[in-house]
Amino acid sequence: SWKGAPQFESEDGFSFKLGGRLNVDAGFTSFPGSTGRRDGFGSEVRRARLRVQGTVPGGFGYKLETDFAANDVTVTDAFLSYESKLGAGGNLEIIAGQHNTFQGLEELTSSLNTSFIERAAFTDAFGFERRLGLSGIYTNGDLLLQGGVFSDNIQALSNRNFSLDGRAVYAPKLGDAQLHFGGSLHYAKLAGVGSVTRYRQRPFEHWSSDRFVDTGAFLADSELGIGGEAAMIAGRFHVSGETYVQKVSRPGFADPTFFGGSLEAGYFLTKGDKRGYKAGTFDRVKPANPVGSGGIGAVQINGRYEYLDLTDAGIIGGTQAGYELSLIWTQTAYTRVMLNYARLQYKDAAYPTASGDTSYGVDVVAVRGQVDF
Amino acid sequence: SWKGAPQFESEDGFSFKLGGRLNVDAGFTSFPGSTGRRDGFGSEVRRARLRVQGTVPGGFGYKLETDFAANDVTVTDAFLSYESKLGAGGNLEIIAGQHNTFQGLEELTSSLNTSFIERAAFTDAFGFERRLGLSGIYTNGDLLLQGGVFSDNIQALSNRNFSLDGRAVYAPKLGDAQLHFGGSLHYAKLAGVGSVTRYRQRPFEHWSSDRFVDTGAFLADSELGIGGEAAMIAGRFHVSGETYVQKVSRPGFADPTFFGGSLEAGYFLTKGDKRGYKAGTFDRVKPANPVGSGGIGAVQINGRYEYLDLTDAGIIGGTQAGYELSLIWTQTAYTRVMLNYARLQYKDAAYPTASGDTSYGVDVVAVRGQVDF
Amino acid sequence: SWKGAPQFESEDGFSFKLGGRLNVDAGFTSFPGSTGRRDGFGSEVRRARLRVQGTVPGGFGYKLETDFAANDVTVTDAFLSYESKLGAGGNLEIIAGQHNTFQGLEELTSSLNTSFIERAAFTDAFGFERRLGLSGIYTNGDLLLQGGVFSDNIQALSNRNFSLDGRAVYAPKLGDAQLHFGGSLHYAKLAGVGSVTRYRQRPFEHWSSDRFVDTGAFLADSELGIGGEAAMIAGRFHVSGETYVQKVSRPGFADPTFFGGSLEAGYFLTKGDKRGYKAGTFDRVKPANPVGSGGIGAVQINGRYEYLDLTDAGIIGGTQAGYELSLIWTQTAYTRVMLNYARLQYKDAAYPTASGDTSYGVDVVAVRGQVDF
Repeated sequence: SWKGAPQFESEDGFSFKLGGRLNVDAGFTSFPGSTGRRDGFGSEVRRARLRVQGTVPGGFGYKLETDFAANDVTVTDAFLSYESKLGAGGNLEIIAGQHNTFQGLEELTSSLNTSFIERAAFTDAFGFERRLGLSGIYTNGDLLLQGGVFSDNIQALSNRNFSLDGRAVYAPKLGDAQLHFGGSLHYAKLAGVGSVTRYRQRPFEHWSSDRFVDTGAFLADSELGIGGEAAMIAGRFHVSGETYVQKVSRPGFADPTFFGGSLEAGYFLTKGDKRGYKAGTFDRVKPANPVGSGGIGAVQINGRYEYLDLTDAGIIGGTQAGYELSLIWTQTAYTRVMLNYARLQYKDAAYPTASGDTSYGVDVVAVRGQVDF
Repeated sequence: SWKGAPQFESEDGFSFKLGGRLNVDAGFTSFPGSTGRRDGFGSEVRRARLRVQGTVPGGFGYKLETDFAANDVTVTDAFLSYESKLGAGGNLEIIAGQHNTFQGLEELTSSLNTSFIERAAFTDAFGFERRLGLSGIYTNGDLLLQGGVFSDNIQALSNRNFSLDGRAVYAPKLGDAQLHFGGSLHYAKLAGVGSVTRYRQRPFEHWSSDRFVDTGAFLADSELGIGGEAAMIAGRFHVSGETYVQKVSRPGFADPTFFGGSLEAGYFLTKGDKRGYKAGTFDRVKPANPVGSGGIGAVQINGRYEYLDLTDAGIIGGTQAGYELSLIWTQTAYTRVMLNYARLQYKDAAYPTASGDTSYGVDVVAVRGQVDF
Repeated sequence: SWKGAPQFESEDGFSFKLGGRLNVDAGFTSFPGSTGRRDGFGSEVRRARLRVQGTVPGGFGYKLETDFAANDVTVTDAFLSYESKLGAGGNLEIIAGQHNTFQGLEELTSSLNTSFIERAAFTDAFGFERRLGLSGIYTNGDLLLQGGVFSDNIQALSNRNFSLDGRAVYAPKLGDAQLHFGGSLHYAKLAGVGSVTRYRQRPFEHWSSDRFVDTGAFLADSELGIGGEAAMIAGRFHVSGETYVQKVSRPGFADPTFFGGSLEAGYFLTKGDKRGYKAGTFDRVKPANPVGSGGIGAVQINGRYEYLDLTDAGIIGGTQAGYELSLIWTQTAYTRVMLNYARLQYKDAAYPTASGDTSYGVDVVAVRGQVDF
């Protein structure tokens, strides 16, 4: 069979697939000049990933994915899995190795299928990342339960940090509409004496290294994250919202609570098109009339409001409100071009202007070319 | 055909295969507290390798394998080959590029097929590694002859170190039993004035960076290694032993002789299972009744005694004796889970306790999940 | 179908191929002893590349290639493409991502198919490299037009450098002979205040880090490059010549003009063999009688004179004249062994001898084993 690239299956139950993705980004930023931050043109290869995955008869599986986009190679997924049918329609998958913890709908949705070039600011700010751990995933009809115990990302493995992560999703159909309700919990014990954490985020685009919201590094014992998710796909229309509260325990200081959230809605201008949905996340858009088969592909417009508050309990990390538009042209199920505009409004920004002002706005226009296989 | 992943063959004699392996390790160590070494929980992705290999009509071949497990990418194999039938049943293979030198049975046995999570301490301590070189491999019936000239591993290519490496194996069948007798020789000329070497090893597991045996860096002109190997596979039972003597020539100082050795035995609790053997090394276990075909796979228990002596001629690198147990559950020919226990007994250890004691024991429990394709 | 490795095609128009190459080099250099440069034996894995490329129905395509030969991973190609037939036999390809700028015949010819182990010195000296950019490639019969706008190589992405690059090729047939005429233009605006450039080159081989010609770093605003190309393949014979002029604009100093050029000719000793030619570059040699089909493959001898002048307008980078011979044994269309000799004659070399002499010669002998798939 073929899914962007060939997928091989042996007669006795092995399977194997090589895949990957390429994101080529470019755009312009406009920052207040007297902050001293360089703006203007920016570009990067955002992702250049290769992936092998397969199954071994008996329920075993594996996935290894590496990203070559940065100066270094980065391992994204590197895990073994075991899958087994349980009674009463249930299915259990056990995963060991580096994989995504379970922090929310947009984070777990592949970057191939998000509505904007970058996910909402809080998903990076709160350090959502893949980690080395052991997880169980239970599915039964419209119900999905995910939970695991994790240490660190393998690129920075201290073996001293631990987290418990869990997520529950209920995703019923209402007529033709797909509903999604979810919640996630994250508790991390940070390593011994003198451990430090930091929350910060770039201004929508990824190619610059400036973070206008930034708590700076501070001592922390543990963090507790609570996420809420709701979404609906109804024909050409979708809406999706998330909130995330991150409480941090500090030794000898007041404990701050940070907040992030987003609300997006989108509509396909092309008839017959809709967002995909699978396994508790948004899935691939498969244009009803793709380029190459006489059509023009799928054209979608999206709007998003998102908010990130990194100021609390004496930590002045700043707040960021984002007003964002996205135009997506999905020529085929495996290619798309995105044009995004974001207006970010800051308070207590990390970079004051010459006059000391830390409340200002930033504009970003970005375009992405994408293919996966 | 299929070997974990599909293997492709063209009608005119090309072949091509993509493969790889994943090792996910975790466990606990217990060190004497007053040595100041951190023990307790440890974990890592031990290996995350991808490999391409193939043949070109006319006897040509290639192999390129990279490991993404560490923070950086590491090239393991990167070589060209040419193979030709000689008269009287002989076969000659020429290899150019980075490949394994010929230092012994366990080192040359794939990490997929060893009896313990980590090989005997001397194989790392004496610096066995892949190097850039030119080799010939001659096989004829039960006889195997390997020899080559090498410079360095390509990650640290000085082009000033040279080694000659050779190995001979005689592997007859005695009834149904597979016998193995081998010997290896290694001579390395170390680079010019002021060249330095160092022998050391971690305590069984690989995730910590502590080395309880360690000669420290010292000036050296050359090293001469001599290895001996013997093994037998008789049905569900196997036994294997190796010794290795490393003599180092030092300018203006006495020349030390270091020693390493190991003796292991193992037995399959499951009927019909046995260790594989191919081309002078242990090969893959193919369970008689794998999981997924109504069986429970192969279950094997192994014991090993191993010893490493890095103290001689004024160099006090310490000695390490290892008493080790391994339980291996091989569900299928391409997956396994290992549970290991090691008790390591040190003399002249590198880390003294608060009271100055350098003779003490260390305990390690480790588990590995493994898949290859 | 099969091109070194299997190439997969789906019924609905997808295609996918995994490929790669391995170069294993070794040789000897002889430098004037009193320059203090280390000569003698050298070796390296010159290239160890993996590549995925494919097409998506509708004219879309992608290519991602990484090189693992150095200590780090390097991304060579990482681009998306879109191809469309235009009227009157024309074809247009749009490329976005990291790809080759359009600097000349030998630079654009794959390293798999060049006549010498290393390209002419000016191609490295003038910094020809892949860069992140957007290009168009128009072909129509014997005409090829290439042009694009680029920023930097993604390993050193400042987003402040810009270049415009273009190339035109006219490649008619004259009877059985393939003719090639081309020209290229390169204009780069270097980043803001205090930007610096540097031109230098190794002595033919790549494994040493000595550069006998070297301008050192100097302030520069922009560079303008102009290249000329001519070549002919007539049966077993070929000739090829290139010139390249690099003008550099310096703030407040005289503007130097540097120069590089090469002239090579080659002849196959084996009947029926010739160099390949495709899309404005030299292509693969496919031996008429390959090893493995009863033949001995193709044997070719080549000679080259090349020149590089990095001295002008007060910058004394030195000049290098190269007199080079190449013997190539192409056993099969996917393997070859090369033996090269180079005599390099320097003036104003970067490394003076003990007596202060900077005019001297250097000898290099190098051998390469190569396979691609």
